[in-house]
Amino acid sequence: MALIVQKFGGSSLATPEHIIRVANMIAATRNGGNMVAVVVSAMSGETDRLIGLAKALSLAPPEREYDALLATGEQVSAALMAIALESIGCPARSFNALQLPLRTDDSHTKARILQVETKLLLETLEAGIVPVVTGFQGINAAGEITTLGRGGSDTSAVALAMALKADLCEIYTDVDGVYTADPDICPRARHLDKITYEEMLELAGLGAKVLQIRSVELAQKYEVPLLVRSSFGGTRSTWIVKEEKDMESAVVNGITIDRSEAKMSIIGVPDRPGIAYRILSPLADAGINVDMIIQNVGSAGQTDFTFTLPKADLDKALPLVQQVAREIKAADVRTDDCIVKVSAVGIGMKNHPGVAARMFKALADENINIQMISTSEIRISCVIDSKYGELAVRTLHSAFGLDKPEKGK
Amino acid sequence: MALIVQKFGGSSLATPEHIIRVANMIAATRNGGNMVAVVVSAMSGETDRLIGLAKALSLAPPEREYDALLATGEQVSAALMAIALESIGCPARSFNALQLPLRTDDSHTKARILQVETKLLLETLEAGIVPVVTGFQGINAAGEITTLGRGGSDTSAVALAMALKADLCEIYTDVDGVYTADPDICPRARHLDKITYEEMLELAGLGAKVLQIRSVELAQKYEVPLLVRSSFGGTRSTWIVKEEKDMESAVVNGITIDRSEAKMSIIGVPDRPGIAYRILSPLADAGINVDMIIQNVGSAGQTDFTFTLPKADLDKALPLVQQVAREIKAADVRTDDCIVKVSAVGIGMKNHPGVAARMFKALADENINIQMISTSEIRISCVIDSKYGELAVRTLHSAFGLDKPEKGK
Repeated sequence: MALIVQKFGGSSLATPEHIIRVANMIAATRNGGNMVAVVVSAMSGETDRLIGLAKALSLAPPEREYDALLATGEQVSAALMAIALESIGCPARSFNALQLPLRTDDSHTKARILQVETKLLLETLEAGIVPVVTGFQGINAAGEITTLGRGGSDTSAVALAMALKADLCEIYTDVDGVYTADPDICPRARHLDKITYEEMLELAGLGAKVLQIRSVELAQKYEVPLLVRSSFGGTRSTWIVKEEKDMESAVVNGITIDRSEAKMSIIGVPDRPGIAYRILSPLADAGINVDMIIQNVGSAGQTDFTFTLPKADLDKALPLVQQVAREIKAADVRTDDCIVKVSAVGIGMKNHPGVAARMFKALADENINIQMISTSEIRISCVIDSKYGELAVRTLHSAFGLDKPEKGK
Repeated sequence: MALIVQKFGGSSLATPEHIIRVANMIAATRNGGNMVAVVVSAMSGETDRLIGLAKALSLAPPEREYDALLATGEQVSAALMAIALESIGCPARSFNALQLPLRTDDSHTKARILQVETKLLLETLEAGIVPVVTGFQGINAAGEITTLGRGGSDTSAVALAMALKADLCEIYTDVDGVYTADPDICPRARHLDKITYEEMLELAGLGAKVLQIRSVELAQKYEVPLLVRSSFGGTRSTWIVKEEKDMESAVVNGITIDRSEAKMSIIGVPDRPGIAYRILSPLADAGINVDMIIQNVGSAGQTDFTFTLPKADLDKALPLVQQVAREIKAADVRTDDCIVKVSAVGIGMKNHPGVAARMFKALADENINIQMISTSEIRISCVIDSKYGELAVRTLHSAFGLDKPEKGK
């Protein structure tokens, strides 16, 4: 008998008909001799409806109340799922974060899980009843409701699986797993049956929106096997697991594109120690995450300093950087939000030199200019003009041999 | 400085615009130097929306989950009201029943309040912050969410006022108080500035749907002064208070009509001891509340036994009563759902004989036949043919001198 945590996203719970279908899937797993704990998101559209109500009252709702409001979406789903399960003869009980409790830190709207109390859950499971737990939410030490950020239900599910020592955490969503690229951009993208936590972290962080990145970090830390699959039918799925010694990995397992960043350059910066710190510390103080950073050594003791940051933070960042530029007597500040970051990710890179060269050549062959480069042990990213984004993904997908075979061959 | 509990019903919170208007009323009370605790219902339509979702999944949703589902309606309102208050500069914090906690018994969907923990509320009030509490809900000893039945937010508000030793409990609704009759039926109905708990209990129980009856019982028991007023403007309101020694009460203060009951008669019942018990105990076992009961002594050792019961329970009751009728060899069982109960209510009746005679004469003058009569110390009720209902209300309203003066006189 296995203990399985099953998580269902909002699109899998969009209507009562969806909920009944999911209930039948849960009951089938339980009737197959497993213990099942369920984690649910809000019905699709519900969180946006609640946000709309809050925004109609205040441009900046207090985060404490915003969390209390949004958390009701999952409470509705959990109660409805328990009703649906009971209606088909599967004993079930809903629990919210206050009832378990599921404890987090104090950071409203982006809280981190500290501890999941399992007493109620284990009692329920041992009584043959399916606990249905609200995803996305927790309580802080003061007993206030917190939320975990968009996609936080994935993290709730992994935390539950970890606390319950589950054999497996299944993430049901509207896609049947992870692909070598976004199939909308790259029609020849292939489905992956298995991928490592490390690769998934690079892919999730770079814009493949299958899983909340923190859920993968947590699964990696506690070695919780994740299985991503569709609640809309089909037999395919993707395992996300730790790297196995004898795993025969492709050099590159995925090509991703990230459209969320902009580029900012400070031209004519005096080449003195401490300049990077002076430029970046006001941004850090303002809570703006800087991603890639390059410094071009120029002539006459001057450099250009360039970095990328979220497009959404560009307006907030610009006056801060202009202020520093005046103080250090830099020549100019330029911004560019017509960029994308394309990346090749693969655990096999560790042992295969020459991947970067292959990537640069493939882009050069299409006359795509590379503006910035960054690498990790298992990833190479290039910033390019946004108009070449889709072309670059398809080009790299072919260059690294990821295309699925054409039909009939 | 007074401590005031203000309760707002669903129609007062129907849209973000309604919520902002109510927030301004709360802030005005607070800025007038009072401490204010707020109790909110679900936005109008929200409870029905949630019920619709549950019924789409199951004809008989488990009560535990049904309560967990419906309780989210008030949690949404409480968070939105706190957001609205903060947005106009009035510090506020929402609390649900789990957070306080507000403890009830185990009776899902119709729980009774056992205890309101005031520690969090008092801390909040003393910090100058308005606590906004979810009405209608509590938790049982197992930590499960319970609800108090339709209109239960009134009872939540009174329980809060009692626990906080508030000076006053204001119930904001869509009418500006209690009238001598339903103005839709009786255009000359007068507004009442003051009424006793006892009178309100008779009026509420008889179909004047201003307040949940249990809230009035609780207010009477703990002598919490209630003030019913409109959140849609106007300066009128109705105090609901205990009877004062020197209160100069009208003989009759209100005429009500109750359309919710049906009549059932068992004809030709052997006139033996214990017959009433045999007829009524199966109904009690089935949870059916019998209201008025009369037994007409007939000829030849036989009687007719007649009682009223909720129309909604008629189908459930009929086979039970038919079974008993066969066992006791009664002649027939007859039902009639074309009846109404009209009542005259007034604390002054205690000291004024002849009220019943005046009532019967007024109805007789209009050729309205009285089918059943029941009385309490401050109420006389007559069951009549439903087609005379409105006529009877207007006739009695005039007969007891309740009509407001015509304009210009």
